[in-house]
Formats: sequence, structure tokens, C-alpha cells
Amino acid sequence: MNMVLLIAHGSRREQSNIEVREVAKRLEEDAAGSFDGVIPAFLELAEPSIQSGVALCSEAGAHEVTVVPYFLSAGRHVVEDIPRELGKAAKLHPHLQIHMRRHIGGHVEMTRLLYHSALGPSAGDK
Amino acid sequence: MNMVLLIAHGSRREQSNIEVREVAKRLEEDAAGSFDGVIPAFLELAEPSIQSGVALCSEAGAHEVTVVPYFLSAGRHVVEDIPRELGKAAKLHPHLQIHMRRHIGGHVEMTRLLYHSALGPSAGDK
Repeated sequence: MNMVLLIAHGSRREQSNIEVREVAKRLEEDAAGSFDGVIPAFLELAEPSIQSGVALCSEAGAHEVTVVPYFLSAGRHVVEDIPRELGKAAKLHPHLQIHMRRHIGGHVEMTRLLYHSALGPSAGDK
Repeated sequence: MNMVLLIAHGSRREQSNIEVREVAKRLEEDAAGSFDGVIPAFLELAEPSIQSGVALCSEAGAHEVTVVPYFLSAGRHVVEDIPRELGKAAKLHPHLQIHMRRHIGGHVEMTRLLYHSALGPSAGDK
């Protein structure tokens, strides 16, 4: 069983955290053929934490956890903080294979998304 | 002439700002059929500012500026700060048509990008 852990920064503004949870929900639907579920987790300021998120994957029966950092740049959070938290989680859950993917700002498809966004409707349009 | 203004938050970590400029550069190449150029700008902590970015578009000969907020959630920066700065810029450059697109976290293609990211190579792979 392979779960995705979608890790976002977390915000004091709850609406931003809700937006991440909604993205995770849509991803779960779209990725149902390849992954058994998607759990959102937050580096700080929101719940579940990365540790709790990995524990939730384990409780759900995961053997593999695919970590997608929902970050636009490879800053300290991506380079140091998330790997450190995943290292701690790996010690607590030695049966889990944890794979960390690149931050999404580094994904080759980001340029296409930005292009389509530039072509698309304005912020105020429905 | 239609320029894209790619607005990111800006970081104290210069490598993150460089990453944004590289994304803008790639976007400029990919979007060459639809837009005449892409200028990166930063809400804070890096240059050019939003005001300077709009001025650069104007100096380049733009009549239209398409603003793409390179933000994952519709927080205060997207909802208040960027529109406020664009409002100021519009007064200074009344000949420019400025269109603001949605933040990219709200784009319908984000789920696909995340899915492909989850399927893709690990962070450490080349």
C-alpha cells in the first residue's frame, strides 16, 4: 500500500490550510489508480504535523510513503527541515519505505501550468 | 505588446529568488507564441519590486501586463497585497491594461502536476 504525504508549510490563516487539504482531496481522486490515498501534512502552524502524517499513513496500512513537498522553492524547509522530520519518522516506523520527491517548483510541468495560468481567466472570473 | 509579470513572494535566501528568475526565463521561452516577454517581480525581500516590474513592462513597450501570482494559497498576499500594489502601478501607468490571474495553487492543472510529481523520480535522483 502506497500513500502520498503532501507536505505544505502551514499557515496561521486557516483558509490556506483548508486550501491545501482540498488540493490533497482532489489529488487523492486523480491518483486513485496509482496511490491508495493522500494525506496532507504541515511543517508548522497547522495539523497534522509531518510526524502525525507519517503515523496516519502507517495506521492506514501503508508500506510505502511518497512525500511530495508542496513548496515552490528549494529553501531551507525543503532542503533541511522536511528531510530531518522524515528521518525522525523513518526511525519510528522502520517498516515504511519513505520516498521524497522534488519540491513542485522544480517540476518540469510548472512552466506549462504558469503558461496556461497566464492564458486563462482573470482572478475575478468564475 | 503583452508581457507577463510573474510575482513571487521573495526570499532572504537568494537561491530561492534565482529559482524564480529561472522559472520566469523558461516561461518566457515556452510562452513566446502568446506573450512578448516574462518579467519576474517580488512582493518583498528581493528585486525588482512589483512597482519596478510593472515599470519594466511599460519600458519594454507593453500595452498589456498579465500578472501571474506564483503563490500556492490565496492568503493575504494574494488577496490584498498584490492587488494593492497593482492598483498603485495602474495609476502610475494609465496606458497599461493590467490583468491579474488566479494564484497558481488554485489552478486546475495543479493536481496533475502533483500527481506526476508523486510518480516521478525522487528528490535525490538526477
